Amino acid sequence: MVNATTPIRLGVIIYPMMTALDVFGPLNALNVHSVQYPMTLSLLSTDMNPVSIDRAIINGVATGMLVNSSSPYFTEYVNPTHTFANAPELDVLLVPGGPGTRNLNATQPHVDWLREHATLDKLDYLMTVCTGASLMARTGNMAGKNATTNKAAFNWVKSVDGADKVNWIAKARWVVDGNLWSSSGVSAGTDMMLSWIEHVAGHNESERIRINMEWNPLNQTDDPFAALYGLV
Amino acid sequence: MVNATTPIRLGVIIYPMMTALDVFGPLNALNVHSVQYPMTLSLLSTDMNPVSIDRAIINGVATGMLVNSSSPYFTEYVNPTHTFANAPELDVLLVPGGPGTRNLNATQPHVDWLREHATLDKLDYLMTVCTGASLMARTGNMAGKNATTNKAAFNWVKSVDGADKVNWIAKARWVVDGNLWSSSGVSAGTDMMLSWIEHVAGHNESERIRINMEWNPLNQTDDPFAALYGLV
Repeated sequence: MVNATTPIRLGVIIYPMMTALDVFGPLNALNVHSVQYPMTLSLLSTDMNPVSIDRAIINGVATGMLVNSSSPYFTEYVNPTHTFANAPELDVLLVPGGPGTRNLNATQPHVDWLREHATLDKLDYLMTVCTGASLMARTGNMAGKNATTNKAAFNWVKSVDGADKVNWIAKARWVVDGNLWSSSGVSAGTDMMLSWIEHVAGHNESERIRINMEWNPLNQTDDPFAALYGLV
Repeated sequence: MVNATTPIRLGVIIYPMMTALDVFGPLNALNVHSVQYPMTLSLLSTDMNPVSIDRAIINGVATGMLVNSSSPYFTEYVNPTHTFANAPELDVLLVPGGPGTRNLNATQPHVDWLREHATLDKLDYLMTVCTGASLMARTGNMAGKNATTNKAAFNWVKSVDGADKVNWIAKARWVVDGNLWSSSGVSAGTDMMLSWIEHVAGHNESERIRINMEWNPLNQTDDPFAALYGLV
């Protein structure tokens, strides 16, 4: 459970072609937070192989959105700490987004694991960043909830199986519905995480971290990108 | 050489306890850029072992700023693609910052490699993020140049060997002096990289990327953090 005396047990789902900043923006904020508020972090994957980031910088070859993680063209990787089969108990789970979510087959094992383990009654907090919301929508565990997602990919996320059960909010930097927190695209995940830190540890702590990161924030309802993508 | 037809050869120096967003903010922008402008990326380290990020989230143990990378308490790692001994030719080099720069002994091999290879006449562009500027200051290769760095660590960076030869600018999101680009702390590296992409590929391309990232920018002279840290 999330409280001031017990280390919060955070998990992050990682999968091929997730987006760099979706993962490392929120984790940077938590890295600074963890100096004063002990946490544990588990990076969960199907197996223990390194997991590629993004489309990645690609030795001169233009890869598309659906390139497999075994492509030789990726350079940036994240190393899992656990497989789904040996995942520890978690208080908080973060589901990042990225072009890899478009690969419905490759992410099916993640969706299946999330359906069982990432439920709003088992977790203290469930957080999605960017198109990470599409993975959770596919589980059905967000049915009836308010949520937002990446604005460039908004209509695609709304089209995945199970997304019709979610109340998608177009103009929002992030949305809180009970213990479900969902952010808009990429950078918005860091604003959401700073707000979550404020929620659990107070404004002084979230401001300490924001200023340490020299982060230029947007507030929860400040979302200029919804209009840029014609969603409002 | 950096031009529109040849893939730009980018290198990033990585070292224990670098800061997550210093690396993956700029790389996220370049990942999106690389879809339309082919680039190669090399991650350079002393050896091929995974390199720890930040203080990291630390299984309940409060580590200090100088913990060695062999600590069991780190969770996030980046995998090098090359060692210094077999580094490829580079057009652009990015030097990220982080608490690990405070470990002068651990970073001495990096400074020694940078002194020889990261010179302003050999590279098309040399970019520092955050306290990465302290590594370059120690090489002597920034002597006589204008530069900025992390605002929380500003006075520490000014105190390292060789830093007295640099003209440090306190209030700046980033500074450009010829082919030396230096940013303020953490998030500022992404604003600098978006500006660099504008410089080499135009405003439409940098805006395409910024909007894709849903990034809330600060301009080159917009630096609220210098005042917050009492530097102006």
